[in-house]
Amino acid sequence: MNHLILLRHGQSEWNLSNRFTGWTDVELSDKGRQEAAEAGRKILASGVMPRYCFTSYLKRAIHTLDIALDTMGRDWLPVVKDWHLNERHYGALQGLDKTDTAKKYGDIQVHIWRRSYDVAPPELTADDPRFPGHDERYSFLTADELPLAESLADTVERVRPCWQELVIPALRLYGDVLITAHGNSLRALVMTLLHLSPGQIVSEEIPTGTPRIITLDDRLTVTDDRYM
Amino acid sequence: MNHLILLRHGQSEWNLSNRFTGWTDVELSDKGRQEAAEAGRKILASGVMPRYCFTSYLKRAIHTLDIALDTMGRDWLPVVKDWHLNERHYGALQGLDKTDTAKKYGDIQVHIWRRSYDVAPPELTADDPRFPGHDERYSFLTADELPLAESLADTVERVRPCWQELVIPALRLYGDVLITAHGNSLRALVMTLLHLSPGQIVSEEIPTGTPRIITLDDRLTVTDDRYM
Repeated sequence: MNHLILLRHGQSEWNLSNRFTGWTDVELSDKGRQEAAEAGRKILASGVMPRYCFTSYLKRAIHTLDIALDTMGRDWLPVVKDWHLNERHYGALQGLDKTDTAKKYGDIQVHIWRRSYDVAPPELTADDPRFPGHDERYSFLTADELPLAESLADTVERVRPCWQELVIPALRLYGDVLITAHGNSLRALVMTLLHLSPGQIVSEEIPTGTPRIITLDDRLTVTDDRYM
Repeated sequence: MNHLILLRHGQSEWNLSNRFTGWTDVELSDKGRQEAAEAGRKILASGVMPRYCFTSYLKRAIHTLDIALDTMGRDWLPVVKDWHLNERHYGALQGLDKTDTAKKYGDIQVHIWRRSYDVAPPELTADDPRFPGHDERYSFLTADELPLAESLADTVERVRPCWQELVIPALRLYGDVLITAHGNSLRALVMTLLHLSPGQIVSEEIPTGTPRIITLDDRLTVTDDRYM
């Protein structure tokens, strides 16, 4: 039996200021740091002790993990950071105010960009300073891997290799694994794990700072799935 | 050309309270956290940008690295935690007040335990709660690897595989590498790197929170060595 603990980062400064974030590397807010510590206490109370961790390349997820591990007295656990676990790339919407964007494009269009399965927001151009190709941390990605914008479907495809090549072997070796990541990269993982349809995954909401403990049998079939 | 940046953790709570620490997992003090941030600023100012990091299994080194990376805007860097980089194990002295210990055993004996090359302090017994064999994080170590007490010579032997099997490949692959660790595990690395004698290494003092940048040529011969 294995446990996979999924934890969405706590509130970020841009959650507070109502902007599209995506791959923008924003800080946790004070409330976000409190949520991370509370998540650590909840994992401790669950009795499930992770022995290996994954997180994204974005500091709101990395710091959530650092704070949760510190609360658990498990700073020493191995942590692998993988860009595949980043939030969905929000393309040309990144940095824009959500209310302003709804005024400009209309509520229906913004709802489609935010909640549809396979419609991506407007793409960045490669000369946009927000294009990840300008960021040193992504310098080893191929042109195909560097997103200009992603739909949830694109994020599901991008997260899948992390699940197959990193998380499954870690579950086999270490038993219980903790992943701190983002609303959409965690939905992507959940879709793969639970074999959900596009219609099911778009209505799945993953709350911030709340550990979700998924129990898997030896064939990695889910036998239990609950929030702490 | 490669750069190896060595950084001793900032002041810990037990540096403040004058106790033998060793493998005891104590927190950084507020001053220690400030030293870590200042170290991050110094590394940034040096222009040497590490692309891969190592630290120990002890939170004073892990947190020093986390804080320095955050100050540098490089939270996303890969970090490998390795118990081989832990502080020298202080055996049965761990937790004792340094002044009380000097009163009990005499200044000369304590000086020998602290400053000689190959004399270890009194050993723990395996039923002592301080024995690392009782700590989950060391559960995969062999009986031979679990220390009861270490001389600096023992620490040098213990650190060597980390240098040979982890740090050298990372230097080859990534160019510039940052290691945050402890006074004696860093002395052990420096001894190996600079081919120092026992007499030379015992007089080498590594200050807390001060990045030491060692430049190596393609054959890993040291061509420059300076503190920031």
